[in-house]
Amino acid sequence: MSALENEVNKVMENAFEAFKIYKKVSAKKRSDFLRNIGEEIIKLGDELIETVITETNLPEARVRGELGRTVSQLTKFADLIDEGSWCEATIDVSDLEREPLPKPDIRKLLVPLGPIVVFGAGNFPLAFSVAGGDTASALAGGNPVIVKGHPAHPKTGLLVALAISKAVEKCGLPAGTFGFINDDGYKSGQLLVKHPNTKGVGFTGSLNGGMALVKLAAEREDPIPVFAEMGSINPVVILEEALKEDCADIAAKLVASVNLGAGQFCTNPGLVITGKTAGYSGFVEALTKEVEATGGAQMFSTSVLRNYTLNSNKMFSYSEVTILAQGTKETGSENVPPVIASVSASDFIQNPRLHQEVFGPFSLLVVCDNKKELLAVVNSLKGQLTATVYASETELPKNEELIDAILEKCGRLLLNGVPTGVEVCAAMQHGGPFPAASDSRFTSVGVGAIKRFVRPVAFQDFPEHLLPMELQNRNPLKIWRVVNNTLTKESIE
Amino acid sequence: MSALENEVNKVMENAFEAFKIYKKVSAKKRSDFLRNIGEEIIKLGDELIETVITETNLPEARVRGELGRTVSQLTKFADLIDEGSWCEATIDVSDLEREPLPKPDIRKLLVPLGPIVVFGAGNFPLAFSVAGGDTASALAGGNPVIVKGHPAHPKTGLLVALAISKAVEKCGLPAGTFGFINDDGYKSGQLLVKHPNTKGVGFTGSLNGGMALVKLAAEREDPIPVFAEMGSINPVVILEEALKEDCADIAAKLVASVNLGAGQFCTNPGLVITGKTAGYSGFVEALTKEVEATGGAQMFSTSVLRNYTLNSNKMFSYSEVTILAQGTKETGSENVPPVIASVSASDFIQNPRLHQEVFGPFSLLVVCDNKKELLAVVNSLKGQLTATVYASETELPKNEELIDAILEKCGRLLLNGVPTGVEVCAAMQHGGPFPAASDSRFTSVGVGAIKRFVRPVAFQDFPEHLLPMELQNRNPLKIWRVVNNTLTKESIE
Repeated sequence: MSALENEVNKVMENAFEAFKIYKKVSAKKRSDFLRNIGEEIIKLGDELIETVITETNLPEARVRGELGRTVSQLTKFADLIDEGSWCEATIDVSDLEREPLPKPDIRKLLVPLGPIVVFGAGNFPLAFSVAGGDTASALAGGNPVIVKGHPAHPKTGLLVALAISKAVEKCGLPAGTFGFINDDGYKSGQLLVKHPNTKGVGFTGSLNGGMALVKLAAEREDPIPVFAEMGSINPVVILEEALKEDCADIAAKLVASVNLGAGQFCTNPGLVITGKTAGYSGFVEALTKEVEATGGAQMFSTSVLRNYTLNSNKMFSYSEVTILAQGTKETGSENVPPVIASVSASDFIQNPRLHQEVFGPFSLLVVCDNKKELLAVVNSLKGQLTATVYASETELPKNEELIDAILEKCGRLLLNGVPTGVEVCAAMQHGGPFPAASDSRFTSVGVGAIKRFVRPVAFQDFPEHLLPMELQNRNPLKIWRVVNNTLTKESIE
Repeated sequence: MSALENEVNKVMENAFEAFKIYKKVSAKKRSDFLRNIGEEIIKLGDELIETVITETNLPEARVRGELGRTVSQLTKFADLIDEGSWCEATIDVSDLEREPLPKPDIRKLLVPLGPIVVFGAGNFPLAFSVAGGDTASALAGGNPVIVKGHPAHPKTGLLVALAISKAVEKCGLPAGTFGFINDDGYKSGQLLVKHPNTKGVGFTGSLNGGMALVKLAAEREDPIPVFAEMGSINPVVILEEALKEDCADIAAKLVASVNLGAGQFCTNPGLVITGKTAGYSGFVEALTKEVEATGGAQMFSTSVLRNYTLNSNKMFSYSEVTILAQGTKETGSENVPPVIASVSASDFIQNPRLHQEVFGPFSLLVVCDNKKELLAVVNSLKGQLTATVYASETELPKNEELIDAILEKCGRLLLNGVPTGVEVCAAMQHGGPFPAASDSRFTSVGVGAIKRFVRPVAFQDFPEHLLPMELQNRNPLKIWRVVNNTLTKESIE
C-alpha cells in the first residue's frame, strides 16, 4: 500500500469513528463548532490574507470580502442549526382506535449521511474551499468532512485546515470530525471518493473533473451522491425594447460582469443573445467602447491562464466566430483583457463546440434574425446556473413562451441584472439542470445546501424518551414541526 | 424506426408539449385533476376488482384495501397541493441601502422537472402501479407522467390508464399529461429512460431491474435522477430481555408478517437476528409451531413462484443454512407455505450470498453467540428499507451503540412491531441506504415523495406581478413561506 493510500485510509477511518460521536452531539454544540471555526479563521489575520493574495493573484479587497463571506456562511449555518426547523421534523401520532387497523406512531427527521469528501474550488480560495460552503453545510448536517485541498492554493488550504482543527479541539470533538489531504495529484481524490467510509461528495470545478467524480461514485459497490457544480455559460438574453432603451447601460453592466475577477466566476456571463433590432448597433458600439477601455486583471495562475488562452484561441479559430471587441494588453502587464466575440444564431445552434465554457473574461454574442430564432437559441442551450433577461416591464409579459423556455434551462433567473455576485441567503439557488450541476434538485450556496448531505429516517412506535429531542412530544427545542399534517411549534398533548 | 420506437417517441413528444401547459396550471386545477383520477378509478367498480384478482391471485379484501389506498394517496397529494406550503417558497427581500453592495430581491420555489417515466410495481397492482404513489407524486409536482405498465397485470394497467386519461380530458388538460405503454419486454422501458424528453424515473422492483435503469440514466448525455426502490431483507433484531419475556408473541407476529400476502412485500422481514440466550429455545419452538400451522397463500404469478422456488432452494442448498420450520403444502393447493431457515452469525457475516433477498414467504434466522457478534451482524448488512428492534423498555437505552448502528442501515426503524404495513402519511420514510433505494434522501411512500420530481428555481429582482403566485408579496395562496429567514403566512409590506 502506498503512503498516499495509507494516509487516505487513516483519514477515512478517523472520520468513520468520529461520525459515531459527531452525529449525536447536540445542535447547540454543532453550531458552537461552526462559529468557532469562523473565529479561528479570523484569528489567522493578515497571514491568511497575504497567503491568499500570493497564491491567487487576487486583489486584497476581494480577498477580505471573501474572508468575510466565508465566516458569514459559517455563522448562517450555525444560526440555521440553532433555529432547528431545518431537520424537517414530521410527526404522525398513533390512532389505536382506527379501523380496520390501528395507526402506528411515526416520526421522521433528517439525519447525516456520514463522512463527506469536499473538493476545494480553485476560484474561491476561501468561500468555496477548505472552510467553504460545502464544508460548512456538511458539518452543519452532522457529517465529518474530509477536504481534498485545491493544488493552486496549498498554503491557504493548510492554514484554514489548521484553524478548523483548532476549533475541533476547542469544542472537544473527535479529531476525525475534520480531515485534510493536501495533494496535488488526482490519485488522492479518487481514493477518497472510492473509500467505503465516504458517504457523499461536494465538488466545484470543471465539467470534466466533476463528471469523473460522478462516474467514480456511481461505480462504487454502494453508489454515493456527488454534488458537482460544474460551470456554466450563463446566457444573457436582451429583448428588443430593453436593447432600444438601455443599450449603453446594459453594455456597461455586462462588460463589468464579464471582466469581474478576470472572468473567473462560475456565474460569468459567457453568452449574450440578442436580435438585430433598433438599438443593436448602439449596443455593439457601447460594448466595444467598454471593452476597449479596460485592461482586465491578472488570472489565478499560469495554468488557468494557459487554459484560458487555449480555449479562447480555439473559439477565435472557428470560422463562424468573429472577434467584436478586445481590451488592450499593456506591455509588461500580466493582466488579461476582456474579449467579446460574435456568432450568428444559426451557426451557434448548429455547433455544440460554440456552447463550451471559456473560463475567463470572454463572452460570445449570439445575433438572432428574429424572435423565433432567439427562442431556438434558448432551446439549444444546455443546463445553466443562471440565465438573465433584459426586458422592459411591458415586454416581459409579451414573451411568456421565451421566459418559460429560459426557466427550464437554469437554476436562477435574473431580470435586468448581472449573474455575478451570488448572494448567500435562504432563497438563493446555485445549481441548475445538467451540466451546470450534477443534481438540479439542490443548491451549493445558501443554507439550503445542508439538504444535500442528510437523509430522512422514520421512527415507528418509539417511546418518547428514546426519540431524538426534535421528535419528542414536548418539543424541547421549540422548533417548527409538521404534526398530523399541520405546521406548528406546539408540544403534543 | 420500429413501431415501438415510434410509439415511445410519440408519447414522449406529447409529454413534452403537455409539460409546457401542465407546469403552469393552478394548484387548484392540479389537485382537482388528482381527485378526478381517484373518482374515475372508483367508477371502474367491480370490473377493476375482478381484473386485479384474476391477474394477481390476490384475495378480494386485499384488492379492495389496495384500491382504497390508491385513491386515498391521490387525495393526500391533492390536499398537499391545496395546502400549498410543500413548494418551499423562500423569499429574501432586497436591501438597496446595504453596504458595500445593495442586496437583490431573491425568491425561490420548487418547480417540476419535466416528463417522468414510472415503472409500475409487480407487487402492488394498484397502489404502486399505473395510478400509484410514483404517478401521484409526479403529477402533483406538475410533471407529465408516462407509465410503463407491469407485464404481470396488463389488463389492470390498461383499465387504470383509461381512467386517468378520462380525468385528463375531464379537467381540460393536454392529452400528453399522461401516457401509458403496455409492453411486456424490456425495450420500451429502455427507450423511455433514454428519451431526451424524460427528466426523471420512478421504479419499484428488483435490484437488477433498478440498477439497469440507474445505469441507463447515468449514461445519458444529460444524466437524470432515477428513484428505484429495490428491495430489502428488513432485519429484525430481538434483544435478550424481549426474547425472554415475549418469545411466543414475537414469533406469532413475525410469522404472520413473513407470510402476509405470500411474503410479496418489499418490507417482508426476511432476516431475524437474535442470540442464544434464555428464551431462544422457546422462541424457536413457537416459531416452528406457528410456521407449521400455516399453509401460506398463492403467489402473484408462475414467474414470481418460479423465482421464489429458485432462490429459496438456492438458500437451502448452502451448507451453512438449516431449514428450521416449514409450513405444509396441501395437495392440490397452489398456496406457498412459509419457511424459516437458520444460520450462524459467523457464517452469515462471511457469506454475502446469504444477504440476498428471497422474495416470498421466507425468513432467515441468524443466531449470535454474544452481543458483540450481534453488532457485527448488523454492521455487515447492506442498506435496508426498514429495521425492527424487539426490546424491553429497560434494555433499549442499554444498547445505544447497537441501535445507532441499526439506524445507519435503514430508512425506518420500528420498535416491537412488524415492518409490513407501510402507513401512507407525512412522517413515513420508505427508502433507505443503498441498495434498498438508489437515493436514500427521498421517500417513495407518503407526501414527501413529491420532492423527488421537483427542483428549486430562484427569481432575482422580478416584478411582483410576474412572479408565480406563491412568491408574490401579498401571499394570495396564504401558504407558509420563509420570508427573510422567518417562517410565516403573512404578506410582505
